[in-house]
Amino acid sequence: MVLVSTRNPLNIGAAARAMANFGFDDLCVVAPYDVAFREARSAVGAAPLLQQAREFPSLAEAVAGCKLVVGTTSVGHRELQHALRRLEYGAKLIARALGAAPVALVFGSEKFGLSNDDLSHCHWLMRIPTVGQDLSMNLGQAVALCLYELARDPKAAAAKPARIATAAADESEQITVRLLEVLQESGYVNPRTAGSTDEKVRRLIRRLHVPTRDVPVILGMLRQILWKLQTGTPPATEPEREGS
Amino acid sequence: MVLVSTRNPLNIGAAARAMANFGFDDLCVVAPYDVAFREARSAVGAAPLLQQAREFPSLAEAVAGCKLVVGTTSVGHRELQHALRRLEYGAKLIARALGAAPVALVFGSEKFGLSNDDLSHCHWLMRIPTVGQDLSMNLGQAVALCLYELARDPKAAAAKPARIATAAADESEQITVRLLEVLQESGYVNPRTAGSTDEKVRRLIRRLHVPTRDVPVILGMLRQILWKLQTGTPPATEPEREGS
Repeated sequence: MVLVSTRNPLNIGAAARAMANFGFDDLCVVAPYDVAFREARSAVGAAPLLQQAREFPSLAEAVAGCKLVVGTTSVGHRELQHALRRLEYGAKLIARALGAAPVALVFGSEKFGLSNDDLSHCHWLMRIPTVGQDLSMNLGQAVALCLYELARDPKAAAAKPARIATAAADESEQITVRLLEVLQESGYVNPRTAGSTDEKVRRLIRRLHVPTRDVPVILGMLRQILWKLQTGTPPATEPEREGS
Repeated sequence: MVLVSTRNPLNIGAAARAMANFGFDDLCVVAPYDVAFREARSAVGAAPLLQQAREFPSLAEAVAGCKLVVGTTSVGHRELQHALRRLEYGAKLIARALGAAPVALVFGSEKFGLSNDDLSHCHWLMRIPTVGQDLSMNLGQAVALCLYELARDPKAAAAKPARIATAAADESEQITVRLLEVLQESGYVNPRTAGSTDEKVRRLIRRLHVPTRDVPVILGMLRQILWKLQTGTPPATEPEREGS
């Protein structure tokens, strides 16, 4: 990770934090505008990484040991002499190259991006697929996106994670029975339509897809309500009944 | 996009900027710590979006019209009562739901994340797959990652963009011939091994995969060098020769 001519030390700190978030550790800084960047509070948990950052007077020296040098750009503002790859694809190429040799990912200054001289040191360029090309990205956010895409697991998008286990039929039925007792006790069930009420409640409970771990909680609530209905003082006025 | 109890107005601005970068426009702010957040300079090109942000006293009011409410978390620090999905997969579910109805993506405060009360309003939770769980992400960066993943085009990772056109055989041969003339003229070629030098140079030029558009430039350079060799003053001492 190479940051060239960064103006705001907070952005260097934010880049360090994103590196720590995604498991990268070699930060190089070329000609930073603020030499006190190592104190940037935005690094939060990545202060050691920031302390160990290497500082270079030129990009050529910073990338000397790298087999692949990739520049980042918001494009639009100049004619590009390089192959330009979208982040999704470029990160794949970088990940592959990383297995064999050091790769430099280069970010220019907040205001001007990479200069033409900087760009001439790059093998190709990468751009983040933002909506418009007029509005550049914040440097710390751009760094985070590139590292996230490098660390991203495409399998995680495809694979369905384990679903929450939902109640088995007998558990749903326990809830149904207990709820029917409560409704019966509360006067909700009209004796003439009691059969259809049973079915209605049974279907309702199945539609809820109650998670297995919530079954005891719900049964407990219903038991308590039933107990109160059977032992407590009846309310002064009767609430509205189904079918009345 | 709902930001709950955000402490630093710069992070609200950064979130607005990321929203503009990826084409989202409805920003809701719940009980911000700094009421002057609308002046955050970090919004850069997203000032109008920040001006139009809606402010609510509670999360319940902010998400009232949403069919799906997804919380974000760095996990690790509390027992979760919700399904937790990785960003890669969660974003897919959100993108699908967005087609049918409004979805709220909720971010907690920089210091404490979402409270248990906030979480109880969420249908499920999403986490960014950072390396360790000890170091949380910067809020502005986390927002940018989630929106990037929503806007990300999986096809862009699979599809190979157009390669740079490389020189056809006849163009490579033109360069080979011209370079051999230069080498001959400069005294690099040993007359006894001239045949093997031809082959060596021909293979070398093919290995370079010269881009088509660079062919005229290279031929021009070689022509100039050849002209100078044939007309200029010879150097005082002869450089080292191949095979000598």
